[in-house]
Amino acid sequence: MIKAVRGTRDILPPSSAVWNHVEAVTREVFRSFHYHEIRTPIFEETALFARGVGEETDIVSKEMYTWDDRDGSSITLRPENTASVIRAYIEHRLDQIPGLTKLYYIGPMFRRERPQKGRYRQFSQIGAECIGTEAPAVDAEVIELAMEILTRCGAQNPTLLLNSVGCKKCRPVFVEALRERLQSVKDTMCTDCQRRADTNPLRVLDCKVPEDQPIIDALPSILDYLDPECSAHFETVKSLLSARELKYEIRPRLVRGLDYYMRTTFEVTHGALGAQNSILGGGRYDGLAESLGSKVPAPGIGFSIGEDRLVMAIEEQTKAEDLAKLDVFLVPMGGAAVKHAALLARDLRRAGNVVEVSTDHKLKRAMETANKLKARYALILGDNEIEAGVYALKNMATGDQQNLTREQLPSALL
Amino acid sequence: MIKAVRGTRDILPPSSAVWNHVEAVTREVFRSFHYHEIRTPIFEETALFARGVGEETDIVSKEMYTWDDRDGSSITLRPENTASVIRAYIEHRLDQIPGLTKLYYIGPMFRRERPQKGRYRQFSQIGAECIGTEAPAVDAEVIELAMEILTRCGAQNPTLLLNSVGCKKCRPVFVEALRERLQSVKDTMCTDCQRRADTNPLRVLDCKVPEDQPIIDALPSILDYLDPECSAHFETVKSLLSARELKYEIRPRLVRGLDYYMRTTFEVTHGALGAQNSILGGGRYDGLAESLGSKVPAPGIGFSIGEDRLVMAIEEQTKAEDLAKLDVFLVPMGGAAVKHAALLARDLRRAGNVVEVSTDHKLKRAMETANKLKARYALILGDNEIEAGVYALKNMATGDQQNLTREQLPSALL
Repeated sequence: MIKAVRGTRDILPPSSAVWNHVEAVTREVFRSFHYHEIRTPIFEETALFARGVGEETDIVSKEMYTWDDRDGSSITLRPENTASVIRAYIEHRLDQIPGLTKLYYIGPMFRRERPQKGRYRQFSQIGAECIGTEAPAVDAEVIELAMEILTRCGAQNPTLLLNSVGCKKCRPVFVEALRERLQSVKDTMCTDCQRRADTNPLRVLDCKVPEDQPIIDALPSILDYLDPECSAHFETVKSLLSARELKYEIRPRLVRGLDYYMRTTFEVTHGALGAQNSILGGGRYDGLAESLGSKVPAPGIGFSIGEDRLVMAIEEQTKAEDLAKLDVFLVPMGGAAVKHAALLARDLRRAGNVVEVSTDHKLKRAMETANKLKARYALILGDNEIEAGVYALKNMATGDQQNLTREQLPSALL
Repeated sequence: MIKAVRGTRDILPPSSAVWNHVEAVTREVFRSFHYHEIRTPIFEETALFARGVGEETDIVSKEMYTWDDRDGSSITLRPENTASVIRAYIEHRLDQIPGLTKLYYIGPMFRRERPQKGRYRQFSQIGAECIGTEAPAVDAEVIELAMEILTRCGAQNPTLLLNSVGCKKCRPVFVEALRERLQSVKDTMCTDCQRRADTNPLRVLDCKVPEDQPIIDALPSILDYLDPECSAHFETVKSLLSARELKYEIRPRLVRGLDYYMRTTFEVTHGALGAQNSILGGGRYDGLAESLGSKVPAPGIGFSIGEDRLVMAIEEQTKAEDLAKLDVFLVPMGGAAVKHAALLARDLRRAGNVVEVSTDHKLKRAMETANKLKARYALILGDNEIEAGVYALKNMATGDQQNLTREQLPSALL
């Protein structure tokens, strides 16, 4: 028997109704913020991610699904979507469209990580990118947008973590200070940190090893190294978040796992998720477009939500069955009734009802099925009912039966 | 500069709004027919498609994106979704859930064909599978469902083509008769048909070479070879379509490109699409589940819609801009106004309006942007307006300006 490939999974009913609900709410919020959808391909040239995400990240160095196409080119299943969106922005000259470019996406990403609870090799992200300005007002609005999606989807008490990672002028000064301090403490840290202390000191800040935490907490803070422009930008972002009554916690260690971030970075955690408690990450990436070949400056900021984790966080409270309820189970008894039922089903469906027509014409078995499907109503349709023009509608919860004309039927189903 | 991989494309605004519209309508129709969504992974073990789609089909033999994963297994981007849905049906024992299994999917598929107008190597299909019965009433309802989606999405005058390809008892008799007749005429046909006449005579019926058409039309018809059960099944399907007032044209040559079809096959063409005029294909596939390892019989029928082509067919008449219109462009003048605008925007968005906040605080330039974005209204917000609690709302089409309190604002935007 063939099974789904390790690390991938099927999303089945009734859970799929929760995914649908999340996406419908999300699209509605994006629409209200005047974001438009972009759909980039599932795979891209490998070079895009090597340049856009960073050769030295775990994603690019270890986790990508990459193969050679028949024409010899190297292609890769997208591990994230920001690089692809920026590629599309450049390729289609979206900079020439008036106003800011405000795009969103929803779809699968692929990383060949070790499968574990809540982590899949194919996972789905809901993301947004706002391209065309450095204005801190946009940082605040993008963060508001992210929080609005989470709360409207039903995430309880998400916690917003905030930082600034500076720019290409002030960050190198910080990285040097970090590297220097690490030389004196790295021998007491985990082997990964010992390596990172030399190759990429910023990554030390991501370390999750418990014993390393007090050491890391005592390392220099990026916030003490921001230059005046980055500092003023960060102050404005914070004050605009406060104006929105959005609470945040400052986390100087929040440098995020991708190389392209600068200035504002943020993350949202959610208590219901335990160890895998990060549900959203984002940040500003001024300079990324230029590094991918843009001839015009295209500063931007974005985020992505781990949709699998968001669904996990809200699944219990969102009654999937209620999202996909069956209104009427139609039971036609005999050949003429089958034809009549088809037309009746069509009309009831067009009026917005969820209708299923039984293929079983044995009354008792059909009513058992209606029960198992948790139909609100069953409607039995025999030759007598058709001739009289009166239907017997049975309320499955109470057992009550009403005789109704075709005209009376729609309002009885409300 | 890195571009999208050949044969793939970005779906951008405003076109993405048409895709969204199609999918929202489609989900609503599926819901009313009590179909539930299934999301299978983007890639599967290669063996699934070899067995499920058929080794000898063009899809499997020529067109799949296949590569070796790091653990040595062969994986393939899904070229279609029926095999995956049946794999999920078996793996998760969906046969044990009461009633018929009625599933739908929307998502990308991958075939490495020669790129041409309206054909992409990554394309999207909207599909449905109804598993668990041979009843012809389900064939008719599945076809009704397919037609309802197309017409509700706005496809004008779709044409339904219908056939029966018999079963594993009667079809071989037909294939032999076909093979025999082809021996005497194949030398006058195209080279592909000469080969198919021996390897897979059914595929001759798909030939599109103009010179071959009169020869093919004179070949035996499957409909003359149906056994009594298949013939009765087909008659019932036709009579139930007629009862629904659904018109169809019988096409005995409609054998479809996948090996797994039996009995009912159907296709829908659409005049607006020219040569690439097939927009939907489907059929019954009793026996497929067993061939993929199901221990229980799981007869089924399904269809898939080429979403790229459906969007192409309706794009002109569906005003994408109207689907993504901007209600209010807010122009805050100065620091206090930026904070005030953020809260006003939040409230207007939560009330269902599409709102964008200008990052440009120069009034003239901001109004130009409002114009270019085709905003319905612009709302200018300065210190005076905030102090007085009265907003100046400008109708961008007429130029009329109204002074409104915060309470009056929502109804003025309706």
